[in-house]
Amino acid sequence: MQPKRLTLLGSTGSVGEQSLSVAEAFPERYRVVALAAGRRIEKLAEQVRRFRPEFVSVAEAAGARELRERLGPDAPEIATGDAGLDAAAAHPADLVVSGLVGAVGLAPTLTAIRAGRDVALANKEVLVTAGALVLREVRAHGVTLLPVDSEHSAIFQCLAGQRLEDVAKLILTASGGPFRTWDPGRIARATVKEALNHPNWDMGPKITIDSATLMNKGLEVIEARWLFDLGPERVEVVVHPQSIVHSLVEFVDGSVLAQLGLPDMRVPIAVALAHPERLPLELPRLDLAALGQLDFEAPDTKRFPCLELAFAALRADEAAPAVLNAANEVSVAAFLDGRLAFPEIAAANAAVLDAHARKVGATALRDLDDVAEADRWARAQANEWLAGAGGVAS
Amino acid sequence: MQPKRLTLLGSTGSVGEQSLSVAEAFPERYRVVALAAGRRIEKLAEQVRRFRPEFVSVAEAAGARELRERLGPDAPEIATGDAGLDAAAAHPADLVVSGLVGAVGLAPTLTAIRAGRDVALANKEVLVTAGALVLREVRAHGVTLLPVDSEHSAIFQCLAGQRLEDVAKLILTASGGPFRTWDPGRIARATVKEALNHPNWDMGPKITIDSATLMNKGLEVIEARWLFDLGPERVEVVVHPQSIVHSLVEFVDGSVLAQLGLPDMRVPIAVALAHPERLPLELPRLDLAALGQLDFEAPDTKRFPCLELAFAALRADEAAPAVLNAANEVSVAAFLDGRLAFPEIAAANAAVLDAHARKVGATALRDLDDVAEADRWARAQANEWLAGAGGVAS
Repeated sequence: MQPKRLTLLGSTGSVGEQSLSVAEAFPERYRVVALAAGRRIEKLAEQVRRFRPEFVSVAEAAGARELRERLGPDAPEIATGDAGLDAAAAHPADLVVSGLVGAVGLAPTLTAIRAGRDVALANKEVLVTAGALVLREVRAHGVTLLPVDSEHSAIFQCLAGQRLEDVAKLILTASGGPFRTWDPGRIARATVKEALNHPNWDMGPKITIDSATLMNKGLEVIEARWLFDLGPERVEVVVHPQSIVHSLVEFVDGSVLAQLGLPDMRVPIAVALAHPERLPLELPRLDLAALGQLDFEAPDTKRFPCLELAFAALRADEAAPAVLNAANEVSVAAFLDGRLAFPEIAAANAAVLDAHARKVGATALRDLDDVAEADRWARAQANEWLAGAGGVAS
Repeated sequence: MQPKRLTLLGSTGSVGEQSLSVAEAFPERYRVVALAAGRRIEKLAEQVRRFRPEFVSVAEAAGARELRERLGPDAPEIATGDAGLDAAAAHPADLVVSGLVGAVGLAPTLTAIRAGRDVALANKEVLVTAGALVLREVRAHGVTLLPVDSEHSAIFQCLAGQRLEDVAKLILTASGGPFRTWDPGRIARATVKEALNHPNWDMGPKITIDSATLMNKGLEVIEARWLFDLGPERVEVVVHPQSIVHSLVEFVDGSVLAQLGLPDMRVPIAVALAHPERLPLELPRLDLAALGQLDFEAPDTKRFPCLELAFAALRADEAAPAVLNAANEVSVAAFLDGRLAFPEIAAANAAVLDAHARKVGATALRDLDDVAEADRWARAQANEWLAGAGGVAS
């Protein structure tokens, strides 16, 4: 069997590094052919020495020079900037791991899809901001999107061997975040430090705040809607504090399939890399008897209104999820800066989504310009809201 | 699409009736072509009127006469006895539901397999007493065995779209039975009435006692070993009192898939009838948030030694599971008759299995005669043990 040719976009980030560590453990199965990174040149140089890719891309010309100096005569082809990232995405490969963080990941992921590559998708923005557009391209080019985060990987695994028309609903699990058991008054006074204290996963500040507001779960609902091509009325959320059941699928016959496991990103990464096979990983195993108990409760959309905003955005138009996402980036940054109280994150997001809904006619996403415009408009609206009556600073 | 041609062996029993009710709800998908029943002629006549099968088989000539009288000139071909049952099993069909209760189900199920029919298997004895033989026939004739009980259906569903070589282990869930929380002294004094009080399922007395001893779970371990062709070292049991998670599969990458649902036999029946599709059933749905909690604990093989006997039988030889099953039928009957204390069920079973192990050389199952001989020998041994030092009566 020929090894699978892998390209990593965002190779020096967390998903990139963990993907490389999985690939490295199975050298007969994987050949890393292209790496794209930003400014962490020393780490990238080390990866190039380990995996000897055919093609490398970095953010800037200075980084490319440093990489050439570090690698000497063994350096592969090195490109830079957006063009370099695009060339990496289109490099001949069997699977492209889309692990860049933030909006920068969208364009190269679309390039990979249009080049006919299967994509292991770890970048949230791709489907949150441009889901309708991406889904059309995925269909047009007949490629497979393989989710890398734990919830969508769970659903993907539960759907193996099943027909999409037999699905009654997808049930995403949510840890409930650090304020799950707090009353509304205490949530209203929540500090940045309290919001950053996530019970189960160690993540960056933005996503940890999103976990506290349940906006993160809302964004995952949006991703699920596009990833699995099911309407928002067929997506649900259940709170499950232990984060052991990563998500579930209910079928039309009432049967429910669930995927479980200890929280470890290497599992969904390995599932995506090896699909439709599985890799023998040497990891601690789930022991249900030792664990003893799994708890479930309904999400409280009164205390955590951001979750409902995601469903509202999906029911609105193709651009509304991008609008919600951009507004949320602005409001979370304001909360982290101390300019906004915790409940005002949701208030700001809701205000911007409402303003979008009041615009005449539905907004479609024809291309990346439409996505950028929705993003730009929403950020401006959110900043206006912050400057006005809504913000703490007002 | 042509409707699927269904044959029901044991059509007037619980699985037979529920299978017919599922098939009846989807007349465009199913055509019932043959029915085999025992002595419930009135019910069978009603089924024949509803489904108009091409072929019917009953236990005795008197029953056939009664059926002809009840049906009049519309009666289909009616056969009797073992030959009739065999003819029903071999009747041209796409799927044979093996729903006969007890040892009588084995021969016609083998006939169906040898005739190249896929089999929806609800009869426990087929794989418990003759697993090695049945597995060889299934392989030789390239047919599919579709499990109908909830635990094996759960595993079957978790294995859809997966490769058997990627399975680390099967994890069967057990309710733990009515004595799950009892101390050994109380279990030793357990009455028949207490043992018949099963928490989650309403079943016959023999299987309810087997649930109290965990022998039922042991027999399911034996079935799973043959149904999914995995060694006993890759089968585990976890106690789960709510009977919501019907079983799980752990894969080599540490990922675990589980099937969940409210306890309702129509779901696994529908899964077997519709495979690889699913049927839209109008049943109450699982609501995890309303349920709140799922509990798990390790099975206590000290208090419930019958479970371990099943693994021991699988490690012994091809005939040992049939020996254990026959011994258990004798010992459970003796308990129900008040001739044996509850812990002596396991003691009797263990004694017979030990005696089998002391025989020289491994016993293979070449044909049904070997199965019958293992059964006969074990019953004699069990009765000898009961008459001897072991029994209450002694």
